[in-house]
Amino acid sequence: MNAPLPVHLLPEIQQRETPTALIAALKARFAERCSTALVVREQHGRDESSFASPPPAAVVFAENTNDVVDAVRLASQYNVPVIPFGVGSSLEGHLLAVQGGISIDMGGMNRVLSINAEDLTVTVQAGVTRKQLNEAVKSTGLFFPIDPGADATLGGMSATRASGTNAVRYGTMRENVLALEVVTASSDVIRTGTRAKKSSAGYDLTRLMVGSEGTLGVITEITVKLYPLPEAISAAICSFPSIEAAVRTTIEIIQMGVPIARVELIDANSVRMVNAHSKLSLREEPMLLMEFHGSPTGVKEQAELVQELAHDHGGNAFEWASTAEERTRLWTARHNAYFAAVQSRPGCRVISTDTCVPISRLADCLLDSITEADASGIPYFLVGHVGDGNFHFGYLIDPTQPKEREVAEALNHQLVNRALRLEGTCTGEHGVGLHKMNFLMTETGDGAVNMMRTIKRALDPKNIMNPGKIFTL
Amino acid sequence: MNAPLPVHLLPEIQQRETPTALIAALKARFAERCSTALVVREQHGRDESSFASPPPAAVVFAENTNDVVDAVRLASQYNVPVIPFGVGSSLEGHLLAVQGGISIDMGGMNRVLSINAEDLTVTVQAGVTRKQLNEAVKSTGLFFPIDPGADATLGGMSATRASGTNAVRYGTMRENVLALEVVTASSDVIRTGTRAKKSSAGYDLTRLMVGSEGTLGVITEITVKLYPLPEAISAAICSFPSIEAAVRTTIEIIQMGVPIARVELIDANSVRMVNAHSKLSLREEPMLLMEFHGSPTGVKEQAELVQELAHDHGGNAFEWASTAEERTRLWTARHNAYFAAVQSRPGCRVISTDTCVPISRLADCLLDSITEADASGIPYFLVGHVGDGNFHFGYLIDPTQPKEREVAEALNHQLVNRALRLEGTCTGEHGVGLHKMNFLMTETGDGAVNMMRTIKRALDPKNIMNPGKIFTL
Repeated sequence: MNAPLPVHLLPEIQQRETPTALIAALKARFAERCSTALVVREQHGRDESSFASPPPAAVVFAENTNDVVDAVRLASQYNVPVIPFGVGSSLEGHLLAVQGGISIDMGGMNRVLSINAEDLTVTVQAGVTRKQLNEAVKSTGLFFPIDPGADATLGGMSATRASGTNAVRYGTMRENVLALEVVTASSDVIRTGTRAKKSSAGYDLTRLMVGSEGTLGVITEITVKLYPLPEAISAAICSFPSIEAAVRTTIEIIQMGVPIARVELIDANSVRMVNAHSKLSLREEPMLLMEFHGSPTGVKEQAELVQELAHDHGGNAFEWASTAEERTRLWTARHNAYFAAVQSRPGCRVISTDTCVPISRLADCLLDSITEADASGIPYFLVGHVGDGNFHFGYLIDPTQPKEREVAEALNHQLVNRALRLEGTCTGEHGVGLHKMNFLMTETGDGAVNMMRTIKRALDPKNIMNPGKIFTL
Repeated sequence: MNAPLPVHLLPEIQQRETPTALIAALKARFAERCSTALVVREQHGRDESSFASPPPAAVVFAENTNDVVDAVRLASQYNVPVIPFGVGSSLEGHLLAVQGGISIDMGGMNRVLSINAEDLTVTVQAGVTRKQLNEAVKSTGLFFPIDPGADATLGGMSATRASGTNAVRYGTMRENVLALEVVTASSDVIRTGTRAKKSSAGYDLTRLMVGSEGTLGVITEITVKLYPLPEAISAAICSFPSIEAAVRTTIEIIQMGVPIARVELIDANSVRMVNAHSKLSLREEPMLLMEFHGSPTGVKEQAELVQELAHDHGGNAFEWASTAEERTRLWTARHNAYFAAVQSRPGCRVISTDTCVPISRLADCLLDSITEADASGIPYFLVGHVGDGNFHFGYLIDPTQPKEREVAEALNHQLVNRALRLEGTCTGEHGVGLHKMNFLMTETGDGAVNMMRTIKRALDPKNIMNPGKIFTL
């Protein structure tokens, strides 16, 4: 699944030298926590994207902020790139050492530092994963809602401004990170934000770092908001005669201001794949997976209203999952959709789209793109955080067939152009990485990208922090 | 009320020359829309802060983005500062021409550009005020919740990252601005963000601009989120035997996750002043003003739970305001608290505090500060967006008595230090401006402020955008 691939789609790669003196200095500082073994480097030089590049020259396993400071300081001394690594679940090539350099594995920084249940906040090291975090706060009656498909680290999720199925109600990492500790390109440790819920204290460095994809610093600690577990939760599946019917239902749910916690579209292809992968027997039709949070009566009200809206659009077979077990099975299936799809075509790679549009434009954006995908002959699946106007086509390409990649990229291109025309964005949650640099230029225009470049040059004059991502310098 | 004051508390002022050639060029470009009349300059050279400085050398009345571009371009050519002006309601000296320069009055840019009701967004020019905006969207069944006391412009509210009474439920400008048009220091027009609800498309320039207090560019257009008017609204006042009882009730409301829309603390001093100013007869005891939004049953549930919590803390005289008229009277009184206080001591100036702490620390932060304020002998009032942990003391000083200012500043200093020890911030919503630069250094440390300075120098190398605010360069 991770065999090297042609890299013809990557921006021009300029591998920088990694002097042996740097490797020696890292070994002296980190001993066995600095590895140059090929297998370790290769494991840290790839992600879930469909790209490949030579692996980093070394991997440092950080255990605390000071480790990160020293690794960045040494790398800076030798002008060598630094790439933070969480669990490797990026879909956009964020972890690839396209200009060489060293990888800093943050997995050892996995301590939950302080749970402030009475303030609904928690502070963690960057290597803590979302599932680990939820396990740690379980006894407090609180939870952390943000759930990208993978069990990503909080550091990685911050760096890509991740979201997921709960974002329609609870927001994304943008809304949920309160404060950060960051190691800058000059190997200084800075703190941004406080535990106060709001602040007007100067530039919003927290939100500048959130979504900066490792290009402005290494995030080492994160304070995020927690939420009281709802008194009542209920989940439901509803099948629809068409994707259009499911989408129109969603648009009405949002426009009416229903505080739905999750509303996920799954196309018939995905249902088929999920059924095969998770041994389920869901109706192989387009469906919405929904969840309602609130008081028992609040949940009931929401559910009744949504059932009515769904019914008006031909939705049927509203099935309720009221026990925690049934719900977990449902959402696990949803979260496994990606892996179910990969399994459905052995040896394939996924080219994943990530457009997000204003809710009223969702049907326009989606339906034409489905027609194009169907016509292409490339197997695909479609899932969407449709309550946010965000959805993902996953084109399943055979990496040995360059033509397939070409077709998939053309589909993506048409989709992004459509989304931008509809006042949306090329990426709702995966980030720009290597793949969407040109789309970013089209989306924001030269002016905004030039401002990003100016900030990058000012904060990282040697261009050592995950260079070659988001934009070319 | 706005007589010049001693400026001994201002950071060192270096007035820059405004060459007559610049004035001539502005007059040539803007004709009668460029004024050098003293009365106009003085009106644009002060705000609601207790500071004074010489007025700007000229005022340009902008009517469109191109006007702003030309004003900035000319100012840049002559190295002269540019200060955007909304309605002049800053409490922190943001509008003062401490280094000279020209003021750009944005009041003429007051068009609502597009209401996208079906997407719950609206795009406005920067000079639109919050009340004007709500008037414009009224017929859609939507509203814009953010309400600083004054009827500020959306440009000013974005620049200071404003919030207000509804922020506990709907967030601040940080959470509610989706996209901006900004004229940069190099007089380029950039666009940040899109109308999509979320995005991972590169650095979050929108949130870098929100809260930058005019120091990184002039905000000319703003896209914000709107919300469906709740099906049911109910408001209530509840008096408490002590501020502590009111605060403890608030803490429990938040910790239980009640989605309360507003929960405002008003101390007995404020009630007295408001009664006098607004011809009301509220009980002159500490009170919470609350509002609940939701479905009729949801509102009922919330209100019942809150009443129970209040009762446990000795809250009594729960009075309901169910008609829109009664509610408006109540909230108008709350919004007029500042002006009521100013009137209570003729000729006074207000030194306003703005700390915000994690909710569990609210009582600790507040109660000691009240003891100190009571002991000082300075008349004061206290109001707070306590659901967010944010509150304001207003010390009413006689500007002719330097001793009073000194005492008030010392109180503020003690309060800020206390808030920072409790992991809070020196400013929840008013911004840093001229007044809180030292506090900002204490709060974030040199590292973060130096990063802000680096960004400022990179984006505004001539230091012409509202210089001398947030930090010294």
